[in-house]
Amino acid sequence: MSGNHGYIADKDAYVRRLKLIEGQARGLQRMVDDEAYCIDILTQVTAMKRALESVSLELLRDHMGHCVVNAARESDEAADEKIDEAMKAIARLVKS
Amino acid sequence: MSGNHGYIADKDAYVRRLKLIEGQARGLQRMVDDEAYCIDILTQVTAMKRALESVSLELLRDHMGHCVVNAARESDEAADEKIDEAMKAIARLVKS
Amino acid sequence: MSGNHGYIADKDAYVRRLKLIEGQARGLQRMVDDEAYCIDILTQVTAMKRALESVSLELLRDHMGHCVVNAARESDEAADEKIDEAMKAIARLVKS
Amino acid sequence: MSGNHGYIADKDAYVRRLKLIEGQARGLQRMVDDEAYCIDILTQVTAMKRALESVSLELLRDHMGHCVVNAARESDEAADEKIDEAMKAIARLVKS
Repeated sequence: MSGNHGYIADKDAYVRRLKLIEGQARGLQRMVDDEAYCIDILTQVTAMKRALESVSLELLRDHMGHCVVNAARESDEAADEKIDEAMKAIARLVKS
Repeated sequence: MSGNHGYIADKDAYVRRLKLIEGQARGLQRMVDDEAYCIDILTQVTAMKRALESVSLELLRDHMGHCVVNAARESDEAADEKIDEAMKAIARLVKS
Repeated sequence: MSGNHGYIADKDAYVRRLKLIEGQARGLQRMVDDEAYCIDILTQVTAMKRALESVSLELLRDHMGHCVVNAARESDEAADEKIDEAMKAIARLVKS
Repeated sequence: MSGNHGYIADKDAYVRRLKLIEGQARGLQRMVDDEAYCIDILTQVTAMKRALESVSLELLRDHMGHCVVNAARESDEAADEKIDEAMKAIARLVKS
């Protein structure tokens, strides 16, 4: 189901941010290879988790402002379906 | 401060897992490039966060079983210092 | 700003659940008074956090299905305002 | 297993904090009764979650500084057992 989603307007920015996160994963591999101190590695892992979290929250914002709003304007059923779906994603995000 | 840390015995396993996480970041870039549905991308982002979380918890376990135990056996001061440091890492993990 | 909110239909159920959570807080006080084992207290604190989390997610679902949908049907500006507000609440929830 | 735990020295402070948290639960019930705005209730629920989180982190700190240190000084087996137990509590805390 590719195409018309809220985030498309910022596609390049999302790809750039995910490339930075990919780089963080490589940086962590180097820290482990170099036998860096455990707590320093943990600090970087948490920073990477936060970067992912902020990407998730922005993707969610785009989804709500586009897909959820369109569904709300379509019908109660469409709105309920989209909101239930978004709530499952939010619950997973809250518990991760 | 490289060298004698709890995780060193499992160094290769940690590097392999971080390579998988790096691959997840590339997978997310492809999903955005292919204009995949927002919720599907969010689901993968949460899966990547969980993979990072489990790496963090194991690194922490190794650190506690090695660096914290050694400090406890050294002196009360050394134990307090290591535990305060570990608690800061745990607090960051809980809030991310 | 009291009155017409999504959760009003389930008001009594929410009050009941919050009473149970209040009871959990009292139970924790008794555990500390009785000098229960630290880990057992921690287990109950986490259970209470989860109970709060599930109340938050349901309040959020009611809010999205009612206040956000109404705003979406009103105007783009009203939708944006409500969604930005909801996203701030979601971000706080994710980081707590 | 009541008695000699790390938090006992601060027992009264923990009970006071848990009484405040109990009061927050009552405050939430009043907000729902008064039909307060959903987002305002959510903000208070998140504040209560944070109060619980900070109690958890301090209980954990006391446990590590007392029970885990004692076990480390006793034997490798005792240390492993206490650290595994603490890690399960930390994992639950991270995922709640």
